[in-house]
Amino acid sequence: MQDMTFVLFGATGDLAQRKLFPALYNLYLDGKIPDTISIVGLGRNYFSNEVFQSKVEKALRAYSRRDIQTSGLQRFLTKFRYCAFDATDKESYQRLNELIENREKELDIPENRFFYLSVAPSLVDVITSNLHTSGVSQTKGWKRLIVEKPFGSDLASAQQLNKKLSKTFSEEEIYRIDHYLGKPMVQNLETLVLANPALESLLNHNQIANIQITASETVGVETRADYYDKAGAIRDMVQNHLLQLVMMTALDLPKKITAEEIRVNKMEIMKSIRPILKENVYQNVVRGQYESGEIFDNPVVGYKKEQGVDSSSKNDTYFAARLYIDNPSWSGIPFYIRTGKRMNQKSTRIVIEFKNKVKESFPIEGITPNLLILEISPDESISLRVNMKDPSSNRFDPVYINFSTNSEGLPEAYELLLFDAMLGNATFFANWKEVELSWKWIQPLLEAYQEDMLPLYPYPAGSSGPEEASQLLLSDQFKWW
Amino acid sequence: MQDMTFVLFGATGDLAQRKLFPALYNLYLDGKIPDTISIVGLGRNYFSNEVFQSKVEKALRAYSRRDIQTSGLQRFLTKFRYCAFDATDKESYQRLNELIENREKELDIPENRFFYLSVAPSLVDVITSNLHTSGVSQTKGWKRLIVEKPFGSDLASAQQLNKKLSKTFSEEEIYRIDHYLGKPMVQNLETLVLANPALESLLNHNQIANIQITASETVGVETRADYYDKAGAIRDMVQNHLLQLVMMTALDLPKKITAEEIRVNKMEIMKSIRPILKENVYQNVVRGQYESGEIFDNPVVGYKKEQGVDSSSKNDTYFAARLYIDNPSWSGIPFYIRTGKRMNQKSTRIVIEFKNKVKESFPIEGITPNLLILEISPDESISLRVNMKDPSSNRFDPVYINFSTNSEGLPEAYELLLFDAMLGNATFFANWKEVELSWKWIQPLLEAYQEDMLPLYPYPAGSSGPEEASQLLLSDQFKWW
Repeated sequence: MQDMTFVLFGATGDLAQRKLFPALYNLYLDGKIPDTISIVGLGRNYFSNEVFQSKVEKALRAYSRRDIQTSGLQRFLTKFRYCAFDATDKESYQRLNELIENREKELDIPENRFFYLSVAPSLVDVITSNLHTSGVSQTKGWKRLIVEKPFGSDLASAQQLNKKLSKTFSEEEIYRIDHYLGKPMVQNLETLVLANPALESLLNHNQIANIQITASETVGVETRADYYDKAGAIRDMVQNHLLQLVMMTALDLPKKITAEEIRVNKMEIMKSIRPILKENVYQNVVRGQYESGEIFDNPVVGYKKEQGVDSSSKNDTYFAARLYIDNPSWSGIPFYIRTGKRMNQKSTRIVIEFKNKVKESFPIEGITPNLLILEISPDESISLRVNMKDPSSNRFDPVYINFSTNSEGLPEAYELLLFDAMLGNATFFANWKEVELSWKWIQPLLEAYQEDMLPLYPYPAGSSGPEEASQLLLSDQFKWW
Repeated sequence: MQDMTFVLFGATGDLAQRKLFPALYNLYLDGKIPDTISIVGLGRNYFSNEVFQSKVEKALRAYSRRDIQTSGLQRFLTKFRYCAFDATDKESYQRLNELIENREKELDIPENRFFYLSVAPSLVDVITSNLHTSGVSQTKGWKRLIVEKPFGSDLASAQQLNKKLSKTFSEEEIYRIDHYLGKPMVQNLETLVLANPALESLLNHNQIANIQITASETVGVETRADYYDKAGAIRDMVQNHLLQLVMMTALDLPKKITAEEIRVNKMEIMKSIRPILKENVYQNVVRGQYESGEIFDNPVVGYKKEQGVDSSSKNDTYFAARLYIDNPSWSGIPFYIRTGKRMNQKSTRIVIEFKNKVKESFPIEGITPNLLILEISPDESISLRVNMKDPSSNRFDPVYINFSTNSEGLPEAYELLLFDAMLGNATFFANWKEVELSWKWIQPLLEAYQEDMLPLYPYPAGSSGPEEASQLLLSDQFKWW
């Protein structure tokens, strides 16, 4: 890995404390980042480098997946500098530039600059254009930009944002981070079949009845009402995370895996997802909003009563849809996706349901479809559900062939993604084409929402979502797993 | 289940205490045997019914898989009667007949008589012919016979024994018990693919590189030298258990499973096992005998020093062989079988190794063949070994998709087999044709043994057997798993 300056906008924010500092620290412990790295944190308030370093230390003690090692810690903290910063103030950029340049000279490292924008969406284009005009991003070395979701709030705004970013950064320099792509199980999807010839036949498309992708949370809107009440589940979860999981699941790779092959392949899949027209939204999409209920036996309020939420809000906290990928591999195999807040469990998983060809010819009690279950979070596991005969009753019962990783030893998503980006490997980042195509797919749904063409079904907190989402599958003779 | 008299020859023996009484008791607790059953135990020494019942109780307290339930226990014990018995004494059969008849009248049950012979092999034909001449087996109801291994000591003696038995019992009335066929995992083999369409493709013969069947023990000859030093691993384990596992693994069932289909199918498989000619034994069979060594860090003596073993014994305590099944399904797929005493682990398992088609096209470090591992005992489990990428190193490591049953709740082999036999279901018993064909297959090996055409390789106790057994697979570019 080349020496660089890691410039973090939003260094006092939640993501920095919980994810980014610990990720950098664990990469450092693994010897994966250069000892001569320069890390510059930016935030609105003024404080000294020493105070900043003690904030970093505090974050590490609270959130690092591995124990703090006293000797390495002090050395790691010396890499951090702080710069008080106002995104709209030219002078701030001058001071930032001076700080970076001084450190580059001091450490004798090239002018490679890595900008991580962990800031409000409205600041993204302000910062990038100022980086350009101030010269901070115009160096003799390379430059890269990591941006967080949301990338726009509809097709037009996403296109506009991309146009603005592209004045300062080329597509190859932009890393749109989606932490779902950093999950080890998701990263294994691309090679699962290639590395396991036995699974190639198992995952033969002729045998798959349907694929179900679930991302459910037990939390409500928490303190994010400001953003969430405008975004809804469709923008917060579907356009990015769920569609990325659809693309990764549907990947059909040639024998040789390269970042470019994956990029092209994902784009082709996103292109092949059959559009849901505004008139058809009703048959293929279910949206919902949680009402009061119980989570783990504790009563919780309904969405409209949450702090910061308009009491007449028609925002969706639940989304389910049926998708078809119109390409030779996946033709006729429905993908069902769903996400929701205040559900009965926290789980992100992909369930592959196999055709139950057994039914007619082997009419024995208890036979259920075989399932391959890829659990992505909170735990990572693969299970295969098979029917085993209870030898004392001759009845069949489903059992799970199960593999769970020891998730303690596993690097976190941000660790993997930061490392890749710092190496210049964009394999697990969302490419602009994918983002644009996914907004194109989402757009008719947003319009149907706006024109009130789709009911908003209530569901009690702590349930598995609105009953209508079950109907979606029942009409194809399936059920959610 | 019909009412019957269960007549147990060898009621004071080890098998009765450890396996048969507990099996009957657990079937009774499950309500699977009639409350009006009559159980008659036979042994050489004289003692009263009460003493016998207290011996049964003692056995249950020591060996029942489930706790003793006081209320049910007394009621269960009242079903037991005892009869002192000499297999060669006509009067003994008269007394037995009277006892059975009296109980039949007392309980008002039909003359259905179930004879379980847990006796020395030399007594089997004496008892059965006396049962006939004395009239004990000539009743108005049905009669059945369960016999234990060994069924003969070579082809001729097995044929002779069968001829004698068939004077008293028809083939349909004879249940040759092989407790390996009572293991839940083995009983699941026949339906594993039928009940799981997803596995059908996984277990496609085109994808299987080889199949390995292992039955290893850590114990030595124990107190059985008398029998074992004449029988050897080949008669004690291979002719019956291992060849039964080969047949069960290779079963290729039509959509409809019946006892008759299984019987015919197993026979066809046994017929299709390519004979190993005397001249070829050397290339396909490895036999061994354990020397002194360590088991779980405790020193143990070599086979020749075991009590009751001739110090110049050339008996085999280890056996490994390569088999081919010459039928369209299994053509070209080697089956490797092995069994041994004083090995480094106690395990009976079937390992299916899949073709490692990945090697050339996907040359990434750490890829190993996919395996499906069916663990039969001591624990029951299915695992699928797949290659997963370690996301932080991009190296592949094998992990196990694993399913283990809770073996506490599972019925024991004898429980399942007794129940089947009492119902008249012979599915999991060895048919005469299978037994005869397996002796036919074994016969050239026995002759090669006798004519000293095969070296007897020594191996240290606590090892994985003689090195030559690894060569057997290495010559096909495989290794034992």
